[in-house]
Amino acid sequence: MSASQMKIGILGLGLIGGSLALDFRTQGHQVLGVSKRESTCKKAIALSCVDEASVDISLLTAAEVIFVCTPLGLIVPQVQQLITHLSPHTVLTDVGSVKTPIVEGIAPLWSNFIGGHPMAGTADSGIEAAQQHLFAGKPYVLTPLPSTPKNAVSVVETLVNSLGASIYHCRPQHHDQAVSWISHLPVMVSASLIAACMGESDPEVLQLAQQLASSGFRDTSRVGGGNPELGMMMAYYNREQLLRSLHQYRHNLDAFINLIEQQDWTSLEEKLSSTQQARPFFNC
Amino acid sequence: MSASQMKIGILGLGLIGGSLALDFRTQGHQVLGVSKRESTCKKAIALSCVDEASVDISLLTAAEVIFVCTPLGLIVPQVQQLITHLSPHTVLTDVGSVKTPIVEGIAPLWSNFIGGHPMAGTADSGIEAAQQHLFAGKPYVLTPLPSTPKNAVSVVETLVNSLGASIYHCRPQHHDQAVSWISHLPVMVSASLIAACMGESDPEVLQLAQQLASSGFRDTSRVGGGNPELGMMMAYYNREQLLRSLHQYRHNLDAFINLIEQQDWTSLEEKLSSTQQARPFFNC
Repeated sequence: MSASQMKIGILGLGLIGGSLALDFRTQGHQVLGVSKRESTCKKAIALSCVDEASVDISLLTAAEVIFVCTPLGLIVPQVQQLITHLSPHTVLTDVGSVKTPIVEGIAPLWSNFIGGHPMAGTADSGIEAAQQHLFAGKPYVLTPLPSTPKNAVSVVETLVNSLGASIYHCRPQHHDQAVSWISHLPVMVSASLIAACMGESDPEVLQLAQQLASSGFRDTSRVGGGNPELGMMMAYYNREQLLRSLHQYRHNLDAFINLIEQQDWTSLEEKLSSTQQARPFFNC
Repeated sequence: MSASQMKIGILGLGLIGGSLALDFRTQGHQVLGVSKRESTCKKAIALSCVDEASVDISLLTAAEVIFVCTPLGLIVPQVQQLITHLSPHTVLTDVGSVKTPIVEGIAPLWSNFIGGHPMAGTADSGIEAAQQHLFAGKPYVLTPLPSTPKNAVSVVETLVNSLGASIYHCRPQHHDQAVSWISHLPVMVSASLIAACMGESDPEVLQLAQQLASSGFRDTSRVGGGNPELGMMMAYYNREQLLRSLHQYRHNLDAFINLIEQQDWTSLEEKLSSTQQARPFFNC
């Protein structure tokens, strides 16, 4: 047992909660897991993700730090219920993919709270999909407020560092603007592509398009064919930033359409050169 | 030497021409290559792509069937020059990614012509990138006209079959409509995404977006960061179909924007469910 061993709570045992649990437990921490479902608790123990698991949230009373890993819409209500069981020095963090509404909802209730967002995932979900080292080499955003106690930040940072993740600090609003560009806007752009193709009125052409589709269509349409509930939730919780990005996107799309309508091939090639040059600055 | 051994000409020794040459030569055909550049001819021989190579188009006089593999804009002018050296029974085909203007340009000049489009490629280009089996398992579209001689179709089909490609027959216009959906529209959709992100006015947010970008942004932006000349050429030669697809796309994008503005979350989730269900029908 190392001096730094902690009691870590995981509320919500899905892909992210389960993968955090696995990494922490492997490092020798004691991990306590809570899920709404008894069957998930049993799986978490069978998969050696946690030391103890329960459907009763009061199991987390013993934890020194708790990662809230429920779906986005349940984070604030679950925290409201959770904190009635905690002593005030317990450190809370969450893994929600939108930060402003979460931080605004929890910070007034719990001073030892720091918002977080691990930018990692797989196509699969659920505790069965949990894997070690899921966060290694991936960005992990933390959104402390000026009022967040230094100790709470430090506890969460030390644990996130131990996952091998790259930590970024920013304001919740900046996080939400950034992810609206690189995560939420692409979902709507990509879904619109699939919807537009499906609207082809000539069935022969639609069938041929489906037969000829290759890597270009596959990649551009991938995130538009993803989990509908997740896509809707992103839009619900990050509506203002997503609409801002969508209107900017539409403006840029119109510029491409206009160049093609005007047959301004020199400007079109220049614009495509500028997007070719810009893309490598995105760290992906 | 098998009974079916042929003299095959390749006009234009880039990735596609070079890869066709490699496969045909491996099968025992005699392959004659023509390039504008002496250095490319030397490379083609050094890489064993061809039996003979020349910058002089008259080398192809001896060929029984010729694949025209130049960039899209050069196909018709090169064929105009080429046919002055050919006997009328020589079969011609091309590999251009847009078919209507090519077929309309060549069919009146040469009856033994059949348009083609192998839907294969790599991120690299040039004879150095040529590889065996590039077309195996990939779609290869042929666009014969009612007036195209059966023998010309049969000669090209037999050779394309020997590459292991899956042959699709359709009218040139149907090909161009289908590829505007699955190949040309995605380029503009994806380039508009990069352009919109680069327009973010807050440099801190832009930098954060670049740092946090992961697989979703990477896939959705990939084809928008591709070869600008190729993107411009697609738009130039398939302008009418691409504009039709772009306007349909914009209409669908507006529908997503409206649902988010109206906060109609049920309809948004339904729309995202329909795109999730539609995507697997695309064969990619």
